[in-house]
Amino acid sequence: MSDPANRGHSTVDEITSVDPATGEVVETVTTATTTEQVAVLAEAAAAAAAPFEELGRAFRARLLRAVADELEAHRAEIVALGRRETALPEARLNGELTRTCFQARLFADVIDDGGYLEATIDHAGDTPMGPGPDLRRMLVPIGPVAVFGASNFPLAFSAPGGDTVSALAAGCPVVIKAHSSHPALAQLTFRAMTTAAQRVGAPEGLLGIVFGTAAGAELIAHPAIKGVGFTGSAGGGAALLDIINRRPEPIPFYGEMAGLNPIVVTEGAAKARGAAIAEGLVGSVLGSGGQLCTKPGLVFVPRGAAGDALVAEAARLISAAPAATLLNRRISESYRETSAALASRAEVIAEGAAPGAGFAVAPRLLEVDAAKLSADELDECFGPAAVLARYDAAELDTAITALPASLTGAVHAEPDEVQRTAALSALLKEKSGRLLYNGFPTGVLVSWAQHHGGPWPSTNTLHTSVGATAIRRWLRPVTWQDAPEAVLPAELRERHASIPRRVDGRLVLPA
Amino acid sequence: MSDPANRGHSTVDEITSVDPATGEVVETVTTATTTEQVAVLAEAAAAAAAPFEELGRAFRARLLRAVADELEAHRAEIVALGRRETALPEARLNGELTRTCFQARLFADVIDDGGYLEATIDHAGDTPMGPGPDLRRMLVPIGPVAVFGASNFPLAFSAPGGDTVSALAAGCPVVIKAHSSHPALAQLTFRAMTTAAQRVGAPEGLLGIVFGTAAGAELIAHPAIKGVGFTGSAGGGAALLDIINRRPEPIPFYGEMAGLNPIVVTEGAAKARGAAIAEGLVGSVLGSGGQLCTKPGLVFVPRGAAGDALVAEAARLISAAPAATLLNRRISESYRETSAALASRAEVIAEGAAPGAGFAVAPRLLEVDAAKLSADELDECFGPAAVLARYDAAELDTAITALPASLTGAVHAEPDEVQRTAALSALLKEKSGRLLYNGFPTGVLVSWAQHHGGPWPSTNTLHTSVGATAIRRWLRPVTWQDAPEAVLPAELRERHASIPRRVDGRLVLPA
Repeated sequence: MSDPANRGHSTVDEITSVDPATGEVVETVTTATTTEQVAVLAEAAAAAAAPFEELGRAFRARLLRAVADELEAHRAEIVALGRRETALPEARLNGELTRTCFQARLFADVIDDGGYLEATIDHAGDTPMGPGPDLRRMLVPIGPVAVFGASNFPLAFSAPGGDTVSALAAGCPVVIKAHSSHPALAQLTFRAMTTAAQRVGAPEGLLGIVFGTAAGAELIAHPAIKGVGFTGSAGGGAALLDIINRRPEPIPFYGEMAGLNPIVVTEGAAKARGAAIAEGLVGSVLGSGGQLCTKPGLVFVPRGAAGDALVAEAARLISAAPAATLLNRRISESYRETSAALASRAEVIAEGAAPGAGFAVAPRLLEVDAAKLSADELDECFGPAAVLARYDAAELDTAITALPASLTGAVHAEPDEVQRTAALSALLKEKSGRLLYNGFPTGVLVSWAQHHGGPWPSTNTLHTSVGATAIRRWLRPVTWQDAPEAVLPAELRERHASIPRRVDGRLVLPA
Repeated sequence: MSDPANRGHSTVDEITSVDPATGEVVETVTTATTTEQVAVLAEAAAAAAAPFEELGRAFRARLLRAVADELEAHRAEIVALGRRETALPEARLNGELTRTCFQARLFADVIDDGGYLEATIDHAGDTPMGPGPDLRRMLVPIGPVAVFGASNFPLAFSAPGGDTVSALAAGCPVVIKAHSSHPALAQLTFRAMTTAAQRVGAPEGLLGIVFGTAAGAELIAHPAIKGVGFTGSAGGGAALLDIINRRPEPIPFYGEMAGLNPIVVTEGAAKARGAAIAEGLVGSVLGSGGQLCTKPGLVFVPRGAAGDALVAEAARLISAAPAATLLNRRISESYRETSAALASRAEVIAEGAAPGAGFAVAPRLLEVDAAKLSADELDECFGPAAVLARYDAAELDTAITALPASLTGAVHAEPDEVQRTAALSALLKEKSGRLLYNGFPTGVLVSWAQHHGGPWPSTNTLHTSVGATAIRRWLRPVTWQDAPEAVLPAELRERHASIPRRVDGRLVLPA
């Protein structure tokens, strides 16, 4: 979790904001949160848990909508600061803010729907094991959650992002670890959230924020914290998991980390629309400087003329691409190192414009023999690079089977290749959480059916970090047995009928 | 995980069956599974995963019903062997077999219902972030699962138990670690399951079983294993979790371990029906020799005359109780040690009949000042013992707040004590996964609304090991984006309508 993005530019205690375009410190945002302050915030979150839960679902929906409104009210300020602190384009930051607000409002809808509670009622009655009691089950919040924002989505996966709003939706207080790559933006968006929380009358301590690597480590070791959301590198996730594994009380860690996001282009697709695939691919690789966890890092392209044409077109587009200014010094240095290591194993077939000032780097396209893929080519290269793996039909399935798991896997195939598509899907399904067809994995729609997760090392969970079901990560079941009606949560009382409930084994929708 | 139940009675490689009534070895059941055999079984399970999943939900429902039928067909043999190997009463074993078969059939019903798949469809369309793709999400099996059976439920939580049938229901192959306390019964029930599997045409390798502590450790370290279910002691669970935490690939560990299962008796309830509560309590403490993870180990009884009468009646009943033959040498020795340690801190107010041969022990009732409860009295004492903690009204909430978490928490209160009941419920809800009213926690009904789990150290998960939703532990989400209809699982195709699905945000029931 060391993130020396601003090393050499600050004292130990200062949290500084760096301009990626120049690599220089622009301002000192705050000081690192002390051990004592971390404890105060964690305990304040714990104290807020019960009052927040008691305020109920309608209150939480109101809170989330107020958060979205407040973020939108500061759109110009947020986008301008984001530009300076991340070097991401204005259109991207505007879109990300729209997505962030949409996401908060979607969770308000999820709360209103109430299906996420999994409310279940078994009335007392005879069973093959004798008389059964009245049992009523639903999900309740797990308690305070720590959220580690990502560098590459300074809004949608950071302070005001999906982990935060899904945890608030569940009824959990949140303490955010601000990412060192955009501390000023984290502070600004955190203030917008606390303003919204105060306006709707949320309990004190519901939201907290800490700055600094040590503070983040102390936060997840604190006994008041009951779950952790993280988006970042596999190394960062593993370091957090180590700290969590040393706690006397294990808590869930939801890490959304890394991936190659392989794409398979069939012979048919390469023939039918190789140039279009090349164009879509390069757009997906270069978007946001290639700094997306769903960036396609490995593309299987058939040997032969159609594949050659696809490769040539992709190479032409990469060669014409400008340098990309990456988010911070660490990412920029890591890109240079990883792409240099790749270049020693695979052929660099195209390179974009040479890097200029700050954290800028040159996009790269590499080519390798699919039959010779080794762990070296299978390391994620975070940034604007991709590897094209050329295959003969007989080699492909073995190469896919050897891949590490990713968030996504994609197939580009023609309609008359249905059986081949199905076979490739079966292989890729073991390696990913989202299967795409004739599309590119970047751009993860926030919706009810979305899944953003996959087998290790892409994530370590059976849950998603994007989409409506992300709320499930912050909930645990409780069953009430023969409870007096007055003690039951409203949603489990006999006559409550505004949410879907399973009653005596049968799912019943609200009237 | 060392379980020296039969130490001194066997060589390293022999797996022996011990009669708890005598403490003597009755037979050698098999030999410990070797490292090579463990690998063969794990890899066979991995090879069975895809064919098993492809056979679909209807096949899995048929398999589970066949397993139940086959177990019932061997009822007399299973109960007789269970009697000899566990010393549990015939009625208990008969009831447990009924429950085990009911459980397998409930999961067949869960499969038929299909709601557990969380099938969700978002059609392509415009969104605030631009055009959205067609997204279709459902849960798929995680892969081969290792199941560690419990000593105290040789059927319902062992080889043919809830972890096994919920994993099979999910579509996961299962490799069982036979409990050393009933290896012959594990083998007999495993054979019944494999007979059923063969009859319905299940793939080879779907079910496996290993014997021996080392084999269990090797099993969960094997890369083919993708999840672990465990029911047993907190120490055993922690040892398995350590092994899992050392894997390069983390996998989910579902441990169902320990608990005090506190009961609070209010002043009103003690006055109105103290004798009845004492009778119910002693029945719950003594049932199955107190060897239930939901045994009430700590009961808060008010000071004063009504509480005194309740305590006196409970003491009378315990004094009249026969010795209990425990399941194995380790449990018997651990009971003697833990109850002796308890006796040095709390007053022994009643003791049942003196132990005779084998693993028999004397039931014990102890009394302590609730204000002086310390970690020593809060250790689970597995076996026929309970601690009565006498309280003044002002002390109770503080004492409850200091408790470790349990599977259950119970309140005995009168109808006119609703506010007090609600306040106690709020405290106990933070400490347990099932809240009971005017009842006793032993006897966990297998049903849709059941939850058997709780905050650490009772379990380490946000999921249950009993009831319909136990299946969720063995499933992970996959989303298909813009997939050709032919590639989609049947449940996600446009016209499939036999299961509940969420379509464009709205839950839709089958016609």
